[in-house]
Amino acid sequence: MLSFQELSAQFNQQFDTQHFPATPNTLYAPGEYFLTIGGKRIRPVMCMMGNELFSDIHPDAFVVARAIELFHNFTLVHDDMMDEANLRRGMPTVHTKYDSNTALLVGDVMLIRAYEFLQNVQPSYLPKILKIFNKTAREVCEGQQLDMDFSKMEQVNMEQYIHMITLKTSVLLAASLEIGAIIGGASENNCHHLYEFGKKVGIAFQIQDDYLDAYGDAAIFGKEPGGDIKQNKKTFLLLHALSVANKEQSVALELLLKNDDAQKVDKVLAIFNECGVGAWAENLKAKYLQEAFDHLESIAVVSARKQPLIDLANYLMSRNK
Amino acid sequence: MLSFQELSAQFNQQFDTQHFPATPNTLYAPGEYFLTIGGKRIRPVMCMMGNELFSDIHPDAFVVARAIELFHNFTLVHDDMMDEANLRRGMPTVHTKYDSNTALLVGDVMLIRAYEFLQNVQPSYLPKILKIFNKTAREVCEGQQLDMDFSKMEQVNMEQYIHMITLKTSVLLAASLEIGAIIGGASENNCHHLYEFGKKVGIAFQIQDDYLDAYGDAAIFGKEPGGDIKQNKKTFLLLHALSVANKEQSVALELLLKNDDAQKVDKVLAIFNECGVGAWAENLKAKYLQEAFDHLESIAVVSARKQPLIDLANYLMSRNK
Repeated sequence: MLSFQELSAQFNQQFDTQHFPATPNTLYAPGEYFLTIGGKRIRPVMCMMGNELFSDIHPDAFVVARAIELFHNFTLVHDDMMDEANLRRGMPTVHTKYDSNTALLVGDVMLIRAYEFLQNVQPSYLPKILKIFNKTAREVCEGQQLDMDFSKMEQVNMEQYIHMITLKTSVLLAASLEIGAIIGGASENNCHHLYEFGKKVGIAFQIQDDYLDAYGDAAIFGKEPGGDIKQNKKTFLLLHALSVANKEQSVALELLLKNDDAQKVDKVLAIFNECGVGAWAENLKAKYLQEAFDHLESIAVVSARKQPLIDLANYLMSRNK
Repeated sequence: MLSFQELSAQFNQQFDTQHFPATPNTLYAPGEYFLTIGGKRIRPVMCMMGNELFSDIHPDAFVVARAIELFHNFTLVHDDMMDEANLRRGMPTVHTKYDSNTALLVGDVMLIRAYEFLQNVQPSYLPKILKIFNKTAREVCEGQQLDMDFSKMEQVNMEQYIHMITLKTSVLLAASLEIGAIIGGASENNCHHLYEFGKKVGIAFQIQDDYLDAYGDAAIFGKEPGGDIKQNKKTFLLLHALSVANKEQSVALELLLKNDDAQKVDKVLAIFNECGVGAWAENLKAKYLQEAFDHLESIAVVSARKQPLIDLANYLMSRNK
């Protein structure tokens, strides 16, 4: 069994190449540019791990992993446009370095290219993989739409937020594992549990992400915490605080959300602390992680094969972005 | 054998329904909106004609035809954004009626939805169809990129223009026919000729489109001619005029392209006429149409089966947009 790091090295070796034809350069060079600026490539490696949980890695796993990474990058190129983000991983985003029309078309062609890789897998499981890939791709779009919708809504409840996060983030992690498992010859039941494992890990990961954005150590985190608070982003923490705050805290919080206050981050954090948001988030994260491990436990393979996935989950939970 | 009109009625009956799930409504309602504003649905019907050229229409032909029409509409939604077009078929475009972020995501999810329909065809030919669909989709993006590139270039030659038009317009017509033919069980050789037929018809159609934009009768054409001339659009006509103009005509033409002149359309048309552009375009269109019919002739089925395709080509060549 290979570790995440070993699989990652194998994947990167195959992935760090040209992804598009040479011409038209005006379309494909921006695409290649974006794919060189990196990322942790968690999803494609999860696809390979899904395969290796059940059997030796099949060459198709690399092909599908590549499609998944291209799909993920397509979402980033278009999301950056929607969010008007100028930087990604410290580098200019496509619409910033080139222009919006280029970024729009680069995203489109990256999605299509993902399907071009998919077309090459064994016909025996192509329809099954295509089905999961399509459903997931559509759900990710739905998640992005809900995220945009929520930013304009007065009230969002925890259930709605978890639904959005599941679509925007978790289903792609889950599907990456499941598609790998299909290539590895897993049964439907095992596929189901692996998918649920990925989904729960994804939610736990988002809770941590929200937590670190508020409480992270700038030195480790790599950026000043409080970005979500400054933008009034509806996060696990804010939604929980709003739901448990007493009258006085509610009024103070609503006021902070509506006005620009130089001490906004500190003041919001103070209310978060009064509401015990940190400990609550830790508990919720632990709950989802436990549910994830329960699903992993239900998969009918010897536990030694599961170790890399346990390591991955723990690594994701300890990383500081 | 059914005529284009009969097949069109059959297709529309199946297509005029809901294409997306109900929620999130903020994403899917704009998608449904755009699909109701119509269009001639030439491509999906060509897919059905490709099938019927070789055998009775298989239910898969409807499914793929639907995917093709969704793909085509995805390109329209995103092209309208790039072209900053406010109206399409007299109705507000998606980014105009809603906003750019919505239009971006609606296009994305429409493309994914096209693949979701594709996934349901018989596994025996799914890989083959997926391959053609992917290649064509990528080529259409390349064509759009080249079109944008050309608008910024000083010089474009006829060969480059035909290449762009082929990618942007013709390959989807060609692929629609070919995919239908595959469902109909056509041989590789027959598929090839049918694809080439579609490609040549597409180019002939674009020549006519360029011609009508300059010389069309406003009453029939539905809009004032001269739009391309006003926008300095590089068309078959302009590129030919530039290539055959004498020194004096060249200078006059270049000057008209660089300056705003109230009589611009008339003056450019006068030079076009001096250069014999109209007759040249008629000849070129006839040449491509003949090449298309030669390919159709080479297809090994009885000629009676080919009649609807001949009728379609003639109909496309006579229509006034």
